[in-house]
Amino acid sequence: MNEEHIARAALARLAEPGDTAMGAALRVHGPHEVLRVLQSDGPLPPEFRRRDPAGYRVRLGGPSAADDLATVARLGGRFVIPGDRHWPTQLDDLGDARPIGLWERGPVPVRHAALRSVAVVGSRAGTDYGTYVTDELARGLAGARWSVVSGGAYGIDGAAHRGSLAGGGTTVAVLACGVDVVYPRGHDRLLARIGETGTLVSELPPGCSPSRVRFVERNRVIAALSRGTVVVEAALRSGALITARRARDLGRSVIGIPGPVTAPQSAGVHQLLREEDTYLVTSAAEVIEHVGLIGEDLAPRPSGPTRIWDQLPPEATRVWEAVPPNRSVDAETIARDAGAAAQTVAACLADLEAGGLVTRETTSTEQGEQRTWRRTTVN
Amino acid sequence: MNEEHIARAALARLAEPGDTAMGAALRVHGPHEVLRVLQSDGPLPPEFRRRDPAGYRVRLGGPSAADDLATVARLGGRFVIPGDRHWPTQLDDLGDARPIGLWERGPVPVRHAALRSVAVVGSRAGTDYGTYVTDELARGLAGARWSVVSGGAYGIDGAAHRGSLAGGGTTVAVLACGVDVVYPRGHDRLLARIGETGTLVSELPPGCSPSRVRFVERNRVIAALSRGTVVVEAALRSGALITARRARDLGRSVIGIPGPVTAPQSAGVHQLLREEDTYLVTSAAEVIEHVGLIGEDLAPRPSGPTRIWDQLPPEATRVWEAVPPNRSVDAETIARDAGAAAQTVAACLADLEAGGLVTRETTSTEQGEQRTWRRTTVN
Repeated sequence: MNEEHIARAALARLAEPGDTAMGAALRVHGPHEVLRVLQSDGPLPPEFRRRDPAGYRVRLGGPSAADDLATVARLGGRFVIPGDRHWPTQLDDLGDARPIGLWERGPVPVRHAALRSVAVVGSRAGTDYGTYVTDELARGLAGARWSVVSGGAYGIDGAAHRGSLAGGGTTVAVLACGVDVVYPRGHDRLLARIGETGTLVSELPPGCSPSRVRFVERNRVIAALSRGTVVVEAALRSGALITARRARDLGRSVIGIPGPVTAPQSAGVHQLLREEDTYLVTSAAEVIEHVGLIGEDLAPRPSGPTRIWDQLPPEATRVWEAVPPNRSVDAETIARDAGAAAQTVAACLADLEAGGLVTRETTSTEQGEQRTWRRTTVN
Repeated sequence: MNEEHIARAALARLAEPGDTAMGAALRVHGPHEVLRVLQSDGPLPPEFRRRDPAGYRVRLGGPSAADDLATVARLGGRFVIPGDRHWPTQLDDLGDARPIGLWERGPVPVRHAALRSVAVVGSRAGTDYGTYVTDELARGLAGARWSVVSGGAYGIDGAAHRGSLAGGGTTVAVLACGVDVVYPRGHDRLLARIGETGTLVSELPPGCSPSRVRFVERNRVIAALSRGTVVVEAALRSGALITARRARDLGRSVIGIPGPVTAPQSAGVHQLLREEDTYLVTSAAEVIEHVGLIGEDLAPRPSGPTRIWDQLPPEATRVWEAVPPNRSVDAETIARDAGAAAQTVAACLADLEAGGLVTRETTSTEQGEQRTWRRTTVN
């Protein structure tokens, strides 16, 4: 903890998340100077453009940086800023929209948790299908030692955190409120568990309430922290789609899990999958294939059962098909039905018989022995 | 009907569908010469490579071309060959795998029916979901005057034909057996209806039974006839995937309709959608967008309900969000919560009040009038 932490903590009180004017001013003048100007009555530096300083100054009477830092420390948390050893440098991709700092709570620094992480997000009103698929996915990711980053909300977010925890994984909840605020209320136990084993993180100081704008800006942090964003269920215009598109803008993988086209909860995912640079996946292994290191995390290609004709050359398949399963016929009939020469048919029948695929029957007639074939019944 | 029809009808009896050696020989020597050689005892021309002539000659004793042509004529059908006015020239894209000729039955020549057509194919074991979606899709295509081409099988194929018929459209069943053979048996009435209003078509002469090889080769005709192939439900290794990949090889659009990732019947579609050059769609309009003429058949972009914050500038949204819905607060509180200057807040509140989004309350106090605001409750 140093002077820069204190200055940035104070600035985090004054600015809303995603304030690129603030980000530009910080980049040019540093946190001390920006804070000094905002605490004075003077004009703002040019990076703030035409922003009214009163928008920041109206908040100067709020809790002090020392109060906020003490509150978070009391909860066993910390405030990390760019340049810290534990700063998640992938957030630097956000440019001037990079958070001023991050308030963290939990045993795993977000930098570590997020190094090998996937964001799993979706509708608050997830269906049973979406909840099931999310749970499977998050467990699978946990099993492959991938962290799950999500937003702590009801529905898909909650299923993602729970699945990761159930799979023994690390999960990160990026909040749109202070890390000491329980939102949504019904997730009090879930958020407590995440705080005990993973990380609760926010760019908003303790005590702050969520708002729509904060949810939207929070999504950019989810997108930037992780190697890719998976959307499980999302209605048209769902916030999860904003997260996914921000991930795409940041060069992260954008991944969707399809569902029934009859379900409004999948309509947003399908819209996303119809856009460029979006990948359809059906399993954790396929997600990892997209976000993993090239050649390291290849998913097994799904395959159906092997069938007899996969093993046979085309000619033998034709002959095999020409042998009826319900009666025994002679080679000439088989040749005609298969459209194959007698010699070919004889060779194929010998192979098929050796493989147990046809059964030969021999009948003694006045003209000598007559051989006929019947298809062997298999599975 | 001319000599070439008779020669090609005879050759259609001797060769199996998709015989590229036969196709090459026809291209070089023409049907009369190829038929003459096969009817003789001599060696085959070099295009046949090492193929054993007995494979063809074993079938020479079967029904004559005249018999076959008479059989189909009796059913109100016809035999069309390359060069005919009614030949579907899109089949020429198959190169040497082009059918020797097509046996047609029904009032609409396949050439006409297929000019503006989409193949809709899928699993024989379609689920209720798949059947429903296929029906909706085929009706929608029919409503937009697109024909539906399919294979006449149980499951998705059947739903595609039925949906097209229900929508008043033209539908084409491409069979892997003679056009006089009812296969599958349970589709006797459906096939009869297609024959009455659309087209039954096959490259196999009358009386021929289906076989696995014939199903596989039939798929290339479905793929080549239509502008694109839509796979609705398909297990891994389903024949519908063969049709789709043949369509891709032919430069046609390959389209998949997703389903639950938990359903084996959708696993093949999802596998297809993970390949290059495959489009995910959710409606007939989106299918038409892919197969239609550029700029002519654009699907409407799906959209969710418009929300208040879509209409407001970001600053006004922030102010609106800072006005609580359950109690009335003063402008100073709103400014602090929104992080906005008093002047901005005053301007935004005036706009929001004019728009009916906030309600002003005025209380007389000893200090004079006090104005407070409360968020107006809107759905």
